[in-house]
Order: sequence, then structure tokens, then C-alpha cells
Amino acid sequence: MALSTRHLLGIKDLTPADISLLLDTAKQFKEVLQRPVKKVPSLRDVTIVNLFYENSTRTRISFELAQKRLSADVINFSASGSSVSKGETLLDTVNNILSMKVDMVVMRHSASGAPHFLSKHIPAAIINAGDGINEHPTQALLDAYSMLEVFGTLKGLRVAIVGDILHSRVAQSNIHLLNKMGAEVVVCGPPTLIPKYIEEAFEVRVEYNVDKALQWCDAANVLRIQLERQNQVLFSSVREYSLAYGINRERLNRLNKKITIMHPGPVNRGVELDSDVADSDNSIILQQVENGVAVRMAALYLLSGSGNS
Amino acid sequence: MALSTRHLLGIKDLTPADISLLLDTAKQFKEVLQRPVKKVPSLRDVTIVNLFYENSTRTRISFELAQKRLSADVINFSASGSSVSKGETLLDTVNNILSMKVDMVVMRHSASGAPHFLSKHIPAAIINAGDGINEHPTQALLDAYSMLEVFGTLKGLRVAIVGDILHSRVAQSNIHLLNKMGAEVVVCGPPTLIPKYIEEAFEVRVEYNVDKALQWCDAANVLRIQLERQNQVLFSSVREYSLAYGINRERLNRLNKKITIMHPGPVNRGVELDSDVADSDNSIILQQVENGVAVRMAALYLLSGSGNS
Amino acid sequence: MALSTRHLLGIKDLTPADISLLLDTAKQFKEVLQRPVKKVPSLRDVTIVNLFYENSTRTRISFELAQKRLSADVINFSASGSSVSKGETLLDTVNNILSMKVDMVVMRHSASGAPHFLSKHIPAAIINAGDGINEHPTQALLDAYSMLEVFGTLKGLRVAIVGDILHSRVAQSNIHLLNKMGAEVVVCGPPTLIPKYIEEAFEVRVEYNVDKALQWCDAANVLRIQLERQNQVLFSSVREYSLAYGINRERLNRLNKKITIMHPGPVNRGVELDSDVADSDNSIILQQVENGVAVRMAALYLLSGSGNS
Repeated sequence: MALSTRHLLGIKDLTPADISLLLDTAKQFKEVLQRPVKKVPSLRDVTIVNLFYENSTRTRISFELAQKRLSADVINFSASGSSVSKGETLLDTVNNILSMKVDMVVMRHSASGAPHFLSKHIPAAIINAGDGINEHPTQALLDAYSMLEVFGTLKGLRVAIVGDILHSRVAQSNIHLLNKMGAEVVVCGPPTLIPKYIEEAFEVRVEYNVDKALQWCDAANVLRIQLERQNQVLFSSVREYSLAYGINRERLNRLNKKITIMHPGPVNRGVELDSDVADSDNSIILQQVENGVAVRMAALYLLSGSGNS
Repeated sequence: MALSTRHLLGIKDLTPADISLLLDTAKQFKEVLQRPVKKVPSLRDVTIVNLFYENSTRTRISFELAQKRLSADVINFSASGSSVSKGETLLDTVNNILSMKVDMVVMRHSASGAPHFLSKHIPAAIINAGDGINEHPTQALLDAYSMLEVFGTLKGLRVAIVGDILHSRVAQSNIHLLNKMGAEVVVCGPPTLIPKYIEEAFEVRVEYNVDKALQWCDAANVLRIQLERQNQVLFSSVREYSLAYGINRERLNRLNKKITIMHPGPVNRGVELDSDVADSDNSIILQQVENGVAVRMAALYLLSGSGNS
Repeated sequence: MALSTRHLLGIKDLTPADISLLLDTAKQFKEVLQRPVKKVPSLRDVTIVNLFYENSTRTRISFELAQKRLSADVINFSASGSSVSKGETLLDTVNNILSMKVDMVVMRHSASGAPHFLSKHIPAAIINAGDGINEHPTQALLDAYSMLEVFGTLKGLRVAIVGDILHSRVAQSNIHLLNKMGAEVVVCGPPTLIPKYIEEAFEVRVEYNVDKALQWCDAANVLRIQLERQNQVLFSSVREYSLAYGINRERLNRLNKKITIMHPGPVNRGVELDSDVADSDNSIILQQVENGVAVRMAALYLLSGSGNS
């Protein structure tokens, strides 16, 4: 079995069969991660470079753990301005690294489309670890994996995505994946944070009232409010956002059912999510983190060609 | 044989038997480090994350070398503001990392008690690599190990600790260890840098005259003057401190015996210690550094549970 | 076979036989790098520390890849001010690291002569990865290796080095190497960027007219213009430099022959080199990068003593 694509640039490019293959493979790696010996030799002799043009401790560590547990050799590159400020183009940087015979590139970049641009020019397999406000495919895969663990299927599942939909690559990748796998999606947030075109572009419904969204859904994926971006929008104060859209125990108690709470992290406790929800048994936030390593092992393994026969 | 504790948070929590076990195990690892092949497979399949919330090149490298020589998988995390400034709590950061199935955490933090707080909430074994002005247990263990190499025993040994006792986790861990192992301790420095309560809290004697302290002791552990903190104290100028408390050749020549000089590094040459002392055969500073790797291998090994039977 | 030196501080100290041995050994490692399995166990149980006191992503990654493909254990140290600003001397830093039983040091420093100074005081083998405006020996070796691949020999080869000769360790190491191996060298650039003494110190000819230099040579090594240094010199504007000395397609078309273009990277596209030249089949820039890993594997291997019998 093999993916229909040489890169993992976005969920948008994957077929439902690709997604199923990734999730099934992740399941096998999750079993490996339960063993006392959590390491497999699958990517021995594969060299992977983690190109992080944007800071992301948790995603970088998750990828690095996945790589080390597959026995790959890992080179970390974090562009904290210096090397990039020497005026080198992205393509030159990557071409140079690839000339050193690197097999795979995991890349995070603040510019939407950066990994797609690269994939047209370099031979190595690329995994997008987040590009601007476009996609974050391994996050959507780990979200899907985590929902599968709870619900057994994505088909017909009702998922509410709550928060800053406009600037969220997590939202976009999730919507693509859930649409492809037959789930129902509601996006919920203040009008200023939901793109105008969204109902035309995707199979989603917009709901401005968070209580209605929660009542409707089986699982709510609560996005992180990027505090640094909120000066551009109508919801000028974080406190106002929290009152209107923050998920707290009181809101969940008003529902006549139990729903599952997800969050891509890091949580702004008391803003989009209260501690008594984040740490409750509604929450599968830490399971998401755990599943992230298995999902990334699956992506690395399948894109390395190790899965082909 | 096993330690009486699951974590190494401070010397305060260890029994004399724990300390002896750590030092005996370190001796075995020091023998390994003399071999051409300095690597052992003891921690193969153990994943360790080094969480450094405070910069410390030498301690981080010492731990990383110890980990690699035990064949562990190592993930480095240095919180240079960015990830922490996203507003995530310490507990969230660590919980996330642990959800990725990390076995051990080595942690340095500027807040006293940070690793103790964590140890109550997470399952992984924690080694404190320095917390605020509280403890730095592996430093005290390597100091003890180095004194054992010179003197054969700690029992009855006379140790002077010279410098900024008030702000020093090294002093505090050393005093705990020397008290538990039957050594005699004098702390020496300007009154502003010695806590008022110290003679009540520990079995130590205070001596403000450095020449008397040196004449009394077998070994002097000379602490680094943290130049950035000295604006708060009476000894306003570094030069004044150096004249009154700096250890130089002239001072040592006035003694009617030879004493051993230690320093946790990095040395401010010409401030608390002169070069002709630091580089003399009185000094065991570089042996301390060397022993640091063996001592940290011992701590990692014993806390991993590999020593249990 | 063994090198005549215990360190690789500069090309200046090497014999022609040393250079040949390094280049021949690099050839063997380049063959390894063409295999699916690019890893050899040669430096298993060797611990190498990369001491980068100056930022250099590409050189650091190249060395790290070389080290990992030789199965060495790698510790990275980048002095981004913090540890160095604690006031520790270079010698203390390195002595401390060596006390931890490190076998080799790869070092970049902004001070010319820093690795030479160290080599007189520490037992470990040192590789200079660039010191101030003095030498960058592995760069000259990879340049030589790349020219050998194109021309088969360095003897009698005509090489033009174009750009800021005055501040360039790449130029200096290249001139040493080419002189020793019997190549002819022209240095070319504005008078302000060429040292007055150069024709007396080296076997080189100075040519201020870049078109004449290009017409004369077989290969042109185009140096990066260090934009931050150019405020000190007569060519006040980058645009002026580019007009007078920038290598572009038009200039190459005017020649009645094809020449080979090299660049140590990163390229300032449109300044010292135009994109249509950098990306043309005149250019062997990416081959240089690729060869850098093989050349560094050779240097590490030979200096580790693994090549001795």
C-alpha cells in the first residue's frame, strides 16, 4: 500500500484512501509506542531535516520523537532570523541542504504555500508542519485519529470547530479531512473570525452561537486564540471573547449530553478553554498529543517509501 | 539496590545510603569513561528530555553526554522565552511532552521548587539540574565524588564553602550532602551574602575571615560570584570582593599546609579565584567537570529503574 | 597513511601529500554517500563537539551530517552570547568540555587564530570551521575536490578568485591550497578589497578587471559580498559593486570559452552572482555543497586516528 502523493503538503491533496492508510498505519505505530521498547528500525539510514522557520516547540519535539523512534538520523534547523537574514532564498537554503543528501524535509513556515513551492523544485519528500494560514495536515490527522479512538468512525460524526477560523490552518486542515471522511462540520466563532466564503468553499455550516454549536456536536475542537492577532478584529478584548465563546464547565453542564473536547495546544487557560474543562474527562487533549507521535511516525514511514513493496 | 526516591529533586530528600549508592555507581561509570569505548547500552530505548528554562551550556552538555553514553534518546528543549511566552503553564508544557511517552525529565528552572511541583503531577522521573536558589543536587554529588577521589572519605573532612552563600543552590546542596555524610562545614563570605538563619538550619559554622577559613579546611569550594546579582549587596564593587575574599596564590602560600580548591564553574578569573590558583595542582576544577558526567550517568541509570532487580 | 598534523587548523600547515590524502579519502566517502545506506561505523564511540561561536547554519549542518554518517556522537554548542557573556574564557570553556572526555572539536570563531591558540593547550583534535579572516580549510578542500571532479587535476589549472579578497578566509585557504597543488591563481576585485601585500605573500596575480580575469581562467570562485562589511570600503553601494564585478550571463557570453563557476554560499543573487549564472550548467555550486560532506567526513576520519595503522 502506498499514498497517492509523494509529499504531505495538505489534507486537501489526499484521497480518502490516503487518509485511511495514514490512520491505519498510525494505529500500528501507536501499538509500538505502548511497548517497553518503543523504537523500530524502519527509517535507519534515512536522514531527515526539520526546517522550522517559525518557532514551535511542541510540533518540533513531536516530529523529532517520531523520527528517533523510527531510528532516522535527525538534523534540526531553526531559522531564528540569522541565516535567513543573510539574504538567502528559501529555495537556496533547501537546495543546499538537499545537496547534502537529505532524504526528507519536515517544514514549518509562516508563508502559506512555502512547502508547496519547494515540492516543485526539490526531489526529497516534504511534510508540511504548518504553513501560514493554509494547512497543518499532521494536526488534522492526529485530531481524526483521536476522534476515531473515541467514536470508532468519522462517518456521520458531528464536529464543531470553535474559535478563530479565519487565521487557522488547523481549522482548514480539519475541515478538509472531515469533509472527505463523511463527518458533519459546524464552524463557530465571532463573525469577524469566520471567512465570508466558507460555506461556499467547504461543506460546513456557520453557527455564531457557541451554545447551539455545542448542543449539536459530538466533539468540539476548540482553537487557540492567537492573542497577538486579535488587535485586528472586532472582538477587541480577550475577556469579551472569553465571555462569548470560551468553553467552561457551566456551558457544558447546560447541555443534555456529554461531548468530547479537543484543543491543538497550547491552551490559553481561561480564554478559549477553562481549566476545569481542559483537565476534565471530557477532554482528550493529552491523547491528541500522544497520538501526534504515532501519526507523524506513520506519515514519515509512508512517505519514506518504506511502506511500498 | 535502588534509591529510596523516584526523583532526584535535591540532596535534602536523600538518605546517606542513597548518596553512597549514587557515588558508588558513579565510580563504575567513571571506569567506563576511561575505556576507549565509552558507551554502554544501559538506557537504550529510554527517551529523556532536557528541559532547560534557564541557560546552562556546561550542565546541559554534561547531561547530554551522560545520556548519549548510556545510549538514551535525547530531546533538547530550551525555553528561550518563545514557547513559554505563548502563555502556556509549566505543567501544560511538561504534560504535553510526557504524553509523547518520555521516560525521564532533566530540568533546570529559575523558580525554586519548580521540579518539586512537577514531580507531584507527572509520572516520569525528574532530575533537578538546578532550581532557583534552592538545590543543584548533581553538582553536590560531583563535588563529593571529587573530594572522595582526593581524600578517600567524607567523614570528618573539613570543607569551607566560600562566596555568595545566600543565592547559591550549589552551597545549599553541598551543605545538605556534607552534613549527611559526616563532613564538617564552614561557610565563608561577607555578612551580606550569608543567610542569617544558616547556623540554625544546618550544621555549619560561619566564618567571615577567609584566611581563617582556608587555614581550617582540607578543601575549599569557591563559589562563582554572580556579577549580575551583586548590585543588591553591600560589597558594591567586584574589586572590593576580590580583595577581601578572592583566593589567590599569596593567600595559599601563607597557609602552613596544602588545601584542595574546587569551583563549580564558570570561573570569574581574578574575581573569586585567581588564575595561578585555578590552574595550579591545588585545583581539581577539571576533575570536577569530568566526574560530572559519571555522576549524572549514575543518577540517570538509577532513576531509570535499570539498577533495580 | 596519516596526516602530518594532529589538527586541521589551516591549509597553510598541510603538505601537498596531506591535501592529496584528504582528497583521496573524500573520494571514498563520496562513494559511500551515493549508496542507499549512507552510514559507516568508522567513528562509532567517538564524541565530537561542534563549538560554533559564530552562526553558520550550512557549515554546522554539513559537519553534523558528516559526523552522523560516520556514526559519531555529536554535541552541538552554539555560543549565542549567553554562556560566553558569563565571562568565561575560551580556554576555560573548551577545557571544561574536554574534561568531559570529548575526542574532537570542530570550531568556528570570529577571532582569527582562535583554534590555533586552543590547539596548543588541549589534547583533542581540532578542526577549524572558519576563524575570523584567517582560514576555512574544509571549504578550500571541498572547492579543490569539486574542481578535481570537473578538470581531473589541479596542476596548471587557472583559477580566478573574485570579490572581497581582503576579508575572506575562503580566499586565503583557497590560495594556500592552489599554490601548494600547482594551480595558477588570479585574485580579482576592487582595489579596496585586495590586500596590498598579496602578490608578495602568495603566488598570485592581481587583476582589477573582472572580464580579463574571467577570460583567463578555467574556473572562477566567486566570493560572497559580506554586505555588513561594505560600509568600510570605497565601493559604497552594492549596486556599484554588482555593475563592476557581478558575474552575469552577459559577461559569460562575451567569453570565447566556457568556464566553471563556484561560490561558497550563501549567494547574494543579483549582487556578486546573477541567478541565470548560479543556476546554469556553468555552476557547480550545489556539487560543492554535496562534496562538503564527503570532505568533512575525510577530515574527521583522518584526524580521529582511524586511518592510522
